[in-house]
Amino acid sequence: MPHDQRDRLRLIRTEGVGPVTYRRLLERYRTPAAALDALPRLARAAGRQAGPVVMSAADAERELDRTRAAGGRLVFLGDADYPKLLSLTDDAPPCLVVHGDAALAQRRCVAAVGGRNASANGQRMAETLAAELAQCVVVVSGLARGIDTAAHLGAMRTGRTIAVIAGGIDQPYPPDNADLHRRIGETDLLITEACIGTVPQARHFPRRNRIIAGLSLGVVVVEAAPRSGSLITARFAQEAGREVFAVPGSPLDPRARGGNDLIRQGAILVESAADILDNLPRVPAAPGVSRHTAAGELPIDPPSAAPPEARSLVMALLSPEPTMVDDIVRRCQLSPPATVAVLLELELSGRVETLPGNRVALLPGGTD
Amino acid sequence: MPHDQRDRLRLIRTEGVGPVTYRRLLERYRTPAAALDALPRLARAAGRQAGPVVMSAADAERELDRTRAAGGRLVFLGDADYPKLLSLTDDAPPCLVVHGDAALAQRRCVAAVGGRNASANGQRMAETLAAELAQCVVVVSGLARGIDTAAHLGAMRTGRTIAVIAGGIDQPYPPDNADLHRRIGETDLLITEACIGTVPQARHFPRRNRIIAGLSLGVVVVEAAPRSGSLITARFAQEAGREVFAVPGSPLDPRARGGNDLIRQGAILVESAADILDNLPRVPAAPGVSRHTAAGELPIDPPSAAPPEARSLVMALLSPEPTMVDDIVRRCQLSPPATVAVLLELELSGRVETLPGNRVALLPGGTD
Repeated sequence: MPHDQRDRLRLIRTEGVGPVTYRRLLERYRTPAAALDALPRLARAAGRQAGPVVMSAADAERELDRTRAAGGRLVFLGDADYPKLLSLTDDAPPCLVVHGDAALAQRRCVAAVGGRNASANGQRMAETLAAELAQCVVVVSGLARGIDTAAHLGAMRTGRTIAVIAGGIDQPYPPDNADLHRRIGETDLLITEACIGTVPQARHFPRRNRIIAGLSLGVVVVEAAPRSGSLITARFAQEAGREVFAVPGSPLDPRARGGNDLIRQGAILVESAADILDNLPRVPAAPGVSRHTAAGELPIDPPSAAPPEARSLVMALLSPEPTMVDDIVRRCQLSPPATVAVLLELELSGRVETLPGNRVALLPGGTD
Repeated sequence: MPHDQRDRLRLIRTEGVGPVTYRRLLERYRTPAAALDALPRLARAAGRQAGPVVMSAADAERELDRTRAAGGRLVFLGDADYPKLLSLTDDAPPCLVVHGDAALAQRRCVAAVGGRNASANGQRMAETLAAELAQCVVVVSGLARGIDTAAHLGAMRTGRTIAVIAGGIDQPYPPDNADLHRRIGETDLLITEACIGTVPQARHFPRRNRIIAGLSLGVVVVEAAPRSGSLITARFAQEAGREVFAVPGSPLDPRARGGNDLIRQGAILVESAADILDNLPRVPAAPGVSRHTAAGELPIDPPSAAPPEARSLVMALLSPEPTMVDDIVRRCQLSPPATVAVLLELELSGRVETLPGNRVALLPGGTD
């Protein structure tokens, strides 16, 4: 279905369509083509003059071609080869670009992450741990300098690895890892949410970390400073019900603070791979419910714009503070499907923002 | 009561009289003099030809004199200045030799212990921790090389310390710590269970460690190898319901293994003194019941030897495996006081051994 792929891509790349809206649109309109058709109407219904900026079919084809030319392909949420564990997370990316052996992401994965300015000991620890882990599981990391690099190298000595990157598959980063990037794409697996050609920027890294956690049954942190990206990955893992592991270190070494803090907060202390493998669940502890509905699987409401009265009822319940969608549905006098339809319209028109955890917030200037 | 002190000392120094027997004898015979009188009769009643070897009054006086001459004095279980927390432990030493300010042992104490072959970082950690701790609590350690020495030095920078030693107060050990030993005796507090003149030997150290744990609300382990003495101290602390703390370290450093293991087993991870002070209970978690009864406080049974039939009934319930005294009392057809009297006789005659946790075991060759 090349058209289906193209239309999914166009929908995802539409301004204001995030992972949650994408899933809601597909649930409501069944096919990406029908959702694309409905977008201008939804925007008008929500009181917005111009429709959202939708990616053109030609641009979508061009992106698909460029991705293929670079050796990659797109995997959409709901596809059979979309990573199963990642699909169970809130906010799972609607579309991934993969380069390499996509089947690796369906195996039991453990993430090994840590600081860029790692000590020699930390790098040795990460490499040894990853080499031991890779005899039993696939080792996921972020291809950053320091610990991540050591983890990939260790894993490739004895088994397989997945590098989740923040930029496009044609944009190796950091430059010193260009060769490792190439090798992982050839023999193992590169995954990114970014479209081809994207130069990675700081703001992309938290989403990259969320994918690392989402792919993995557990995350082990080796040398992380307080407030570092590795701790964000650990937090994502914990929120998704994955196990968090940490390598301890001397309190005199600031690079050990993050790991020690995690242990104090309940992470499992790791001295060797056995400490991880012995405590790795077969499935995530709080697996969450896949919020994706495969196209055509469920009966859908007839697509229709909500009346202005319905919009006012919903708007009255919203505030700039995040509110649970369930609470709005419960307190609103509309039927649950009608309430969700209004929220969807408001989201597409840029009046509300959908947040992970099935919450919504009013955006500035968004009150009626 | 110089005679009372002397007689207590004679009783304690009697062959076969350990902490538990000592307490039972005082409970049964009220005064040490009466217990001493009863010893030969008890031994005969238990079927032993020769009585136990009792310390002579002259030897006891000599020990008291030598202790005083070295600046020390004896403190007996039940005395007002016997350390309160230590008195709550199973197997509390009936007699301590103290040198210095005995009141320190009544204050809130935290033990800081660790390996002798400590790294420079470990010693720095111990010294810093102890200096911070000593602003709020008294720091207890074992005057060994390495971590213990660093802990005493750190504590003396900002507060007070107690050194629990394995030998006599006149036998500084290790020799390089002779000056520290002297200073602690002068300004702070030395405690030992060993009588004056005792040269410390390996077998004394576990009992020294038990006292360190018994004095303290919590024990923090800094750099300890697996199966090291510090871990024994931690185990004693845990058994006595005290809090166990450990400083983490790199898995690549074998000296960190013990501490990391403790954390994995539930010890609180420590990066600074605040981690200890914030988690220090005001009283031990499972305070245990003081097994000491002050002389004369309780009514006692008339002292009388148990008939041979009673001995047989009790012996039949004993085995080389440790058995709870409560179980024997319950299963035996004798009254509880009579059962305990028989056990006491058997103990004094070397036929059974009393173990911590109110258990007894038959000694080899001890069956009738």
